Amino acid sequence: MALRAGEQGQAPMNSLKGKVLTLDTMNPCVRRVEYAVRGPIVQRALELEQELRQGVKKPFTEVIRANIGDAQAMGQKPLTFLRQVLALCVHPDLLSSPDFPEDAKRRAERILQACGGHSLGAYSISSGIQIIRQDVARYIELRDGGIPSDPNNVFLSTGASDAIVTVLKLLVAGEGRARTGVLIPIPQYPLYSAALAELDAVQVDYYLDEERAWALDVAELRRVLRQARDRCCPRALCVINPGNPTGQVQTRECIEAVIRFAFEERLFLLADEVYQDNVYAEGSQFHSFKKVLTEMGPPYAAQQELASFHSISKGFMGECGFRSGYVEVVNMDAAVQQQMLKLMSVRLCPPVPGQALLDLVVSPPGPSDPSFAQFQAELGLAPDMFFCMRLLEETGICVVPGSGFGQLEGTYHFRMTILPPMEKLRPLLEKLSQFHAKFTREYS
Amino acid sequence: MALRAGEQGQAPMNSLKGKVLTLDTMNPCVRRVEYAVRGPIVQRALELEQELRQGVKKPFTEVIRANIGDAQAMGQKPLTFLRQVLALCVHPDLLSSPDFPEDAKRRAERILQACGGHSLGAYSISSGIQIIRQDVARYIELRDGGIPSDPNNVFLSTGASDAIVTVLKLLVAGEGRARTGVLIPIPQYPLYSAALAELDAVQVDYYLDEERAWALDVAELRRVLRQARDRCCPRALCVINPGNPTGQVQTRECIEAVIRFAFEERLFLLADEVYQDNVYAEGSQFHSFKKVLTEMGPPYAAQQELASFHSISKGFMGECGFRSGYVEVVNMDAAVQQQMLKLMSVRLCPPVPGQALLDLVVSPPGPSDPSFAQFQAELGLAPDMFFCMRLLEETGICVVPGSGFGQLEGTYHFRMTILPPMEKLRPLLEKLSQFHAKFTREYS
Repeated sequence: MALRAGEQGQAPMNSLKGKVLTLDTMNPCVRRVEYAVRGPIVQRALELEQELRQGVKKPFTEVIRANIGDAQAMGQKPLTFLRQVLALCVHPDLLSSPDFPEDAKRRAERILQACGGHSLGAYSISSGIQIIRQDVARYIELRDGGIPSDPNNVFLSTGASDAIVTVLKLLVAGEGRARTGVLIPIPQYPLYSAALAELDAVQVDYYLDEERAWALDVAELRRVLRQARDRCCPRALCVINPGNPTGQVQTRECIEAVIRFAFEERLFLLADEVYQDNVYAEGSQFHSFKKVLTEMGPPYAAQQELASFHSISKGFMGECGFRSGYVEVVNMDAAVQQQMLKLMSVRLCPPVPGQALLDLVVSPPGPSDPSFAQFQAELGLAPDMFFCMRLLEETGICVVPGSGFGQLEGTYHFRMTILPPMEKLRPLLEKLSQFHAKFTREYS
Repeated sequence: MALRAGEQGQAPMNSLKGKVLTLDTMNPCVRRVEYAVRGPIVQRALELEQELRQGVKKPFTEVIRANIGDAQAMGQKPLTFLRQVLALCVHPDLLSSPDFPEDAKRRAERILQACGGHSLGAYSISSGIQIIRQDVARYIELRDGGIPSDPNNVFLSTGASDAIVTVLKLLVAGEGRARTGVLIPIPQYPLYSAALAELDAVQVDYYLDEERAWALDVAELRRVLRQARDRCCPRALCVINPGNPTGQVQTRECIEAVIRFAFEERLFLLADEVYQDNVYAEGSQFHSFKKVLTEMGPPYAAQQELASFHSISKGFMGECGFRSGYVEVVNMDAAVQQQMLKLMSVRLCPPVPGQALLDLVVSPPGPSDPSFAQFQAELGLAPDMFFCMRLLEETGICVVPGSGFGQLEGTYHFRMTILPPMEKLRPLLEKLSQFHAKFTREYS
């Protein structure tokens, strides 16, 4: 440090100055951000919890946090297999412990093999560990009935939020009436409004139809798009399916109409599909935008730009704290895709432990793996379904679970035919009896 | 989904359309981002590695990655204690295993106790787990010789990069010549130029003086600031100390001069101190900006706004893959601090496993903990220093390690006086002899 003459010891010009950074001088876009999921209500909930702990009397004895989809905070237990593999990855000395199943060890070794220095503590490449992106691609293919997925179009992220903001960032350009507009559903998950405020993009609201269980109406999209063109340049359409917060699951026809609309109106499609494993309503079925788009054929399949987002925070695993997710891009311009990778590389890489968990979520233990039974049982597979699955795997005997026919609650059955010839039926019954004894020993 | 008459089956207007999102239409700020740490050279390195694997002949047999500070990728082993505690947190069944030391179990239980649902899989509050922020504050106090640190001014983050970008985001405002300018050193860590490009802020370069081992010269700051005022509104000054990529460690006098300059010129100070544990040069010592600022007293201490960043990716642990760091803010306007928390809450929370590791980094095992010896040994404490430290802890006998006097490489000594009276000296020598035998058993 060079001190020039007269510089040292100089009295400060003005010893009472206001802050440099104040509400008035700060980034106005950040000031406009609102995020209700963690807003004043949640702040107040924290205070109430503290008051309750201090013995203050309230009309209730505990605060129940239904504000955020945080399964494990609500008592859901993590899946044993996921945590076993992760513990092995974190502390590889455990690989020699007899307390871990062989398949968990194999999986941990495979993941560590793909890590820099064979450690979760090394950075990964910015798009995520190559074999994990391959596993994600295979998972997408399986989900979509074999439609190919290219691992090079899969980018791992710090939760789905991170990937969504990254794609939105790419889309924001222009000034004044040429500024990018983005269509988002109302009600929406407030990440969208928050990210658009921060990026100073124009939020274009389309309303879901509460009368029809919050269905998406393409006529409404058309209406708001027309109006929005007076004030911005709409360039993207966000769809949340299954809906958050609505839970609504879009029909295949609806998805097709949305894709046609996006194609005609030249809108980049963002499909937030993080709740794809949370479909409950009778008769509802999840259709991925990628699958529907591909099956629609030309001109849509090869041209419509789409980014689809998924996460390990929802679904059956609920591993929110690990912050892991991915985006698959479809028909994205190759040069833009390079720009996206560059942007991701500034943050170096998504957290590697979350990447490892994602790998296990997209490729869970198979029926021949030692961890399969416990994994399935923890997923709450109906006991008769589980019994029949293990029976098939271990003996080759294929029967039908009683739940397919109806049974008194708390009782479990299976149905088998006695059509096989006697010389096959006798050993079959013997194997069945042995299996039954073993199964009962193992799981009771 | 409502289909209006004539809508279904309508032929698309134009079946050959260009992409919506191209280099020409994308966010021009993102396009301007450059990030050399992972740029074309690194891309080429990946290709070269692949070619080598395929047997292509090169003038070298392996690519040595010295492009990024990724200790574990280069073979540095993770610290056992850190990974033990984390494995226990990930898979709490291990808490009953006899293979883990008691202090590791206690630490894991304490962390899990502070997690939602006692699981790393739950979101934490957006600023990070409360007890971990308390531990960070205590660590800062210890580092700074007792200067108080308030956990409410500590915010955990997804690596230091995340926190740096968040603070920069707050600072960006204004249009044209009123646009925020940020002073950054040249050479710099390219996160700064990348973030400023993305945020469309004005980058104001100040040059470090290579002739004086890359020292920071306040006259240079003054020069560039004067020039920058013609084209922007400079509102922040970034300092990287110890320097990245220069390794230069700023003197206390330099830091004082920088603080006086920032105060006079009304610049928000960002101190990137992630290399604070990596000080190697003889006679160099790390001084935190917070400590120097506080010790400068009024008017600086109570007014100059400062954000100081740290990370678990550097230092002795090098746990890059976990993406964890923190920022401590000093003298930040309270309302702005609320805005910062709001902004962080949009991404929900930093990865919880990284938060847990940070806790261990800021409060490692103490001398009375069972894991202390191994922890110290793994940090490469000179064996004689380690011996003397354990001797003191276990027997109360205080001697001096031979390294303080000089010794032949590979040999280790200690110096003790024989001044104690005979009735003390005899039991002392007995204890010493017992300890020596035990120590040799334990660590050989």
